[in-house]
Order: sequence, then structure tokens, then C-alpha cells
Amino acid sequence: MGSESLFNRIANDESTKARTGRVTTAHGTVDTPAFMPVGTQGTVKGLTQQMLEDAGASIILGNTYHLFLRPGHTRINQLGGLHRFMSWGRPILTDSGGFQVFSLNELRKLTEEGVEFQSHIDGSTHFLSPEKSIDIQAALGSDIVMAFDECTPFPATRDEAIASLKLTQRWARRSKQRLSDLHSDAANAERSGITVVNQTQALFGINQGSTFLDLREQSLAGLVEIGFDGYAIGGLSVGEEKSAMFEVVSHIAPLMPEDRPRYLMGVGTPEDIIGAVNLGIDMFDCVMPTRNARNGQLFTSRGKLNIKNARYKKDGQPIDDACRCAVCARYSRAYVRHLYMSGEILGAVLTSLHNVSFYLDMMSMMRQAITLGTFKEFSDSFLSGLARGQD
Amino acid sequence: MGSESLFNRIANDESTKARTGRVTTAHGTVDTPAFMPVGTQGTVKGLTQQMLEDAGASIILGNTYHLFLRPGHTRINQLGGLHRFMSWGRPILTDSGGFQVFSLNELRKLTEEGVEFQSHIDGSTHFLSPEKSIDIQAALGSDIVMAFDECTPFPATRDEAIASLKLTQRWARRSKQRLSDLHSDAANAERSGITVVNQTQALFGINQGSTFLDLREQSLAGLVEIGFDGYAIGGLSVGEEKSAMFEVVSHIAPLMPEDRPRYLMGVGTPEDIIGAVNLGIDMFDCVMPTRNARNGQLFTSRGKLNIKNARYKKDGQPIDDACRCAVCARYSRAYVRHLYMSGEILGAVLTSLHNVSFYLDMMSMMRQAITLGTFKEFSDSFLSGLARGQD
Repeated sequence: MGSESLFNRIANDESTKARTGRVTTAHGTVDTPAFMPVGTQGTVKGLTQQMLEDAGASIILGNTYHLFLRPGHTRINQLGGLHRFMSWGRPILTDSGGFQVFSLNELRKLTEEGVEFQSHIDGSTHFLSPEKSIDIQAALGSDIVMAFDECTPFPATRDEAIASLKLTQRWARRSKQRLSDLHSDAANAERSGITVVNQTQALFGINQGSTFLDLREQSLAGLVEIGFDGYAIGGLSVGEEKSAMFEVVSHIAPLMPEDRPRYLMGVGTPEDIIGAVNLGIDMFDCVMPTRNARNGQLFTSRGKLNIKNARYKKDGQPIDDACRCAVCARYSRAYVRHLYMSGEILGAVLTSLHNVSFYLDMMSMMRQAITLGTFKEFSDSFLSGLARGQD
Repeated sequence: MGSESLFNRIANDESTKARTGRVTTAHGTVDTPAFMPVGTQGTVKGLTQQMLEDAGASIILGNTYHLFLRPGHTRINQLGGLHRFMSWGRPILTDSGGFQVFSLNELRKLTEEGVEFQSHIDGSTHFLSPEKSIDIQAALGSDIVMAFDECTPFPATRDEAIASLKLTQRWARRSKQRLSDLHSDAANAERSGITVVNQTQALFGINQGSTFLDLREQSLAGLVEIGFDGYAIGGLSVGEEKSAMFEVVSHIAPLMPEDRPRYLMGVGTPEDIIGAVNLGIDMFDCVMPTRNARNGQLFTSRGKLNIKNARYKKDGQPIDDACRCAVCARYSRAYVRHLYMSGEILGAVLTSLHNVSFYLDMMSMMRQAITLGTFKEFSDSFLSGLARGQD
């Protein structure tokens, strides 16, 4: 965490706000726009680390909430940190745990200090605060740490949104202070029972403000004043209309510091991602490719394909003949459908691998188009393919 | 199927009956002693075909019963056969379906003609006969076809065992006739609604006779009179004492034709396999490595390891430090345990890959020891490792 930017812009598209760049971390670089497959419990569901590497994942996301509960951040810390624990040598971003605590937990008690909540695994009571969240993320040793925020519920009144973003603001300051304390003095970490395994962790602040554009601005100004290595847009994709989400992104993205990565949290569909890249967003994460895969929904260049559909019973074609992934290179729709219908593990593995590869390849195509100055053409053509609405 | 042997013996161990050789098929060669991972529903549970190839699987087994019911042998036939359907270019052996019908099905009606049974999937009624089983296996296009047998239940009286082996004998003859008819005249296949996709399928006969040694001999003599490309020992590992199993194998294996592969069906533990190789057996199949993996039981050079055991929580060592597999090269016990306890797909994938690799590597070490004339030493040393009884 420092004043020097970890982000180098490489190219800006001429006719849109899309940009490409490179984020540098202790575990290597991430070319942006980048999609981060979600590795909730220290694994991107259904994929081996080798598959992720081969598919071109340059960074993955780990969930602080889940890893804190199981196997526990001190355990992972003792085993050398999350990279070593899961044998993943490339960059990792960890979320703050805020989103899970606020969205997955019915039973929680919010105070200025932090949040008390019950584990979804065994109902046991736990407490997360900015300091605790940062301690956990330091124990995990991720390359990018997220400040602990309150994910403002949707819908929220203006007063609720103000109160929430102000709390998030105070928590952001405490988050930064805590990470600085841990990195500057090993004794601070020792008192929390952890060892700092990655001295070069970057810290991102999280923009809130619900769908109120002036509150989004106010939140952003507060974060910039504190100063972060990157800025994330939180509190979207939580139930609001798609148009409201894009209104916020198109308003706030251009106001975010140009020399820092911009991360739109929890988004989204291929269409959403293309739309947000168009507005200047650099980083994304979403469970959609893996979760939908396990439900039989596959992303293709001609729209979504439901592998359960009987029309694929005799279909010897690959999932997507325009796709370059390891699944499309080797297996047919009929075979993948058979595996899925038979409840075979390999069904979940192959559908997940295809979907994650589809997302990663789409990001790669976007980066190339931005570099070539043809993002608008790429985007129009790709979106029209998606709109064909295969199922 | 012909009088020329598909089996070339390469070496015999001097101090035991162990032997090494090579089985040649249209899809490549299989060095023996060989273990065949079981691909019940057109997939070895938990593994990609790439993982199987990398782990050194030279042949896998497909289950006629399961593929007949789902997705159906005609469907697979229309899609080019099982090799193409599952994208597996190496040899495949298919069982006859007899074992599943007789062991998995409560509801069945046995006549001279064949067996009527209810599907375990939807209760629908089906009929399997020697001709039907061979038709299915021809539709699948496996490299090694098994004659349709009655797997004699255990325990059986002498009279029951005699009746059963005689039925199996008559069915063996019908099986051979049917495969010959299908291969010699495409019209025969067409009338069954299938296309022969592999003209060079070999056919193995199955020895029965329960634990009566003279009946085993009688059964074998009958099979040899008919003439098969290889000979299997069936009806073992079905509930009898281990000593009874080895009594049968040690009695019958030396009587089996030396110039044909000898296949001990459904066996077994690493100790069982080493013991049977010692008696001159060439081929094995068993669900144990994959099924036990999904239950958290791992095979190691120091005995079985139960990954659920709390002692592995903080264990940064590989599953087996003597193992050369892709899992042991990359992941720790603590990580694999975490995945298993969290119900993650990757847990099943990694445990299955380790166990299958362990079996395949053990076979490779046996082949090498036999070639070097050191099988006895290898076997003593390996068995004493297994006996350390890690858990």
C-alpha cells in the first residue's frame, strides 16, 4: 500500500471510455479489463488450479467470510497463507467479508465497532470489524485487500444511504490504518496471532451511496481523501434495476481516479461486463459462470445454452463452436448433457471450465480490441451474438 | 476376434508366477499387469479424460448396463461409439452387464433366453440376453467385449454352482456366435439398429464355478473349448472370504491359457492386486480407488489414510510423499481435507485423481519389477509399506 500506483494504463479506446492496463502485484501482473473467478472456499468451484492457469485466469478472488469460518484464517496463516494453502501462485484479491455478513446472514447486530453475526455453517457467533477483516486478509496474504464496508441494502432511503456510506467511510479509514499497522510492525500482527505473509498487499476502498448519484460522489470524494491503491463500486447488483446500476456506473466511473484500478464488485452477465468496460471499469468478479454451470446454463457466443434441453441429446457439436476452451476442443453437447443428466462430477467440472473460459476469453478479446482501438466494433458484434438467445 | 493372440508375453518373473506382457487393440496397446479405472457412465468418476491420460491409464472399463439405460447404446452408436462419445482414444473394455443385473437388481426374472430386470433409474422393464449384451457392446465399439455371464451368487450350493456355470457356458457360446455374426455381416447389425464401429473387438470368456475348484476347472475347460481372446475370472469378490478368493485364483490361474490375457474381475485392494499378479493375473478393474476417494479414503505407500481425520488439519505434507501424482506434487493434506470437509467438488476430484494414480503407478512398478526379475522383492517391500496402516 503506497502512493505509487500499482496500475499502468496501456491504452484508452478512442470512441468509448474503455481502457486497458496492467496491475502489478507481488504474485505477478493482471492485465485489465480482468475477470476474477470466485474461489469462495479456497477453490474456484469445480476447477483445478491447473485448469484455471490453462484457461488464462491471471487473478482469482477469495472470500474472507468463508475462509474465516472454515478452515480459519489462522490455520491458513500457519500454513503459509492462502497462495500456498491452495497452491495458487498468481494474484489473489480477497473481499472484506462485509458483503457476506450483510447479505447471507439474517442474524446480525451492527454497531459502530463492527458486526456480530452467526455462522451459516454451525450458528456460532462471530464478530467482524474493519480491524478484524484486515487481520484476516493479512493472514491470508492476498495481493489486493478490500476495506471493510457496509454493503448498503437495497432499497434504501436517502437517510439510510447517507448513514451507511458514512459508516463505510469511517471503516475505510480504520481499514487503512490497520493494514498500515500490520505491515509496519510485526508485533501488531503477532498480537493478533498472525504473521504477515505478504508485505506488498494493496488496499482498495469501496464506494457506496445506493442509487443516489450525489451520495456516490460524496462517498468517492471521502475515499480519495483517505487514499487507496484502487477503488471499487460496491452495493450494486443487489436487486436494483439494471438501468439503475448502469446509471450509477456511468456517473461515478469517470470520476474515479484515472491512475488507479476501478473494480465493479459482483458484476455480472457478459452483457453487464461489456457495458461496464465501455464505461471505464477495469476489474470484475462474479459467481455466475461457476454457479450457472452447476445449474446447466452455459454461456456461448450465441447466447445462453441450457444443456438440460432435450434438443442436445444427439448433438455432436461442441458447446460453442467459436470457443477455444479445452471443453469445446474435446467434448460434445450430447456428452456434456449426458454427464449433467447423470449427476456426474465431470458434468459440473466441464460446464464450469467452459463458462469460466468463456468469461476469460471474452476479457482477452476486449483487451485486444481496446489496444487496437476497435472496442466499439467488438462490443457491437459480440453483443449481437449474445442476443441471438440460444437455449 | 480370431485365433491369433492379441497378447504378447514380455517377461515372466523367475521366483513367482507374475508375468508382464502387452495386449494389442485397435486403439493402442495395454501393458500388463494393467489396472482399468471404472468409467461406469462414460466417465471415470471425478476425472477428466486428460487427467486419466496424464496419470497413465492405458485402458478404462465401461459398464454396459449403465450405458444401455442412459444415454442408451443406440444413441452412443449414432454418435460414433463410446470412444468418440466420451472422447477417449485409448482402449476400452466393456463388461457384459451381467454383474450389474445380477447384483444391483432385486427384481429380475432369469430364463434360458436371458434376464428380465427393472432399471435402477426409473423402474422400467428391460431384457438382457447374450445377443443383446453383445449388440450393446458392438454398438459401444469397445476394444474388449465380455461374454454375457450369470455371476453366480455367493454362497451357492454345488448344484446351484453347476447349473449357473453351465448356463454361463451356453451363454458364452451364444455371445461368441453373436459377435461373429455382427462382425461378419453388417446386415445383422442393421437389423438390431446399430452400426459396427470397431471391427477388431476382442472377446473374453468368463470363468465361474463359485468356490468349487473342480467346477472352476470344468468351467475353464468349456470356455477354452469354445475359444476366446482372453479369459476372465468372475464370481469373486462377491462376499466370500479373502482366503477363498485366493484359493480359487491360485488354483485356476495357472490352468488358464498362457498365451491369452487373464483378467480377475472386480478386484480389488492394492494387496489383492499384488497377490493376484503374483499368481499370474494380467488385468484388473475395481471401483475402489474412485469410490473410496469420494468417501475420503486415500491409498498411500504407507497404508490407507482417512482425510477426514482431524490430525491432517494442519498437515502441510502431500498425501503420500512417495507418490509422483499431480495431486501430491501440488497440494497438501490440510488443503485436500479442507476441500473434503467443505463438500467442494475439487475435493472429490483431487482424492479420485490421487487414488487412481496410486493404482496406476503401482501397476507400473510391478511391470518394471517383473521385467527386472525382482517382483518378489518389490512385492515384499510394497506390502510391508501398506501394512504400516496409516489412517
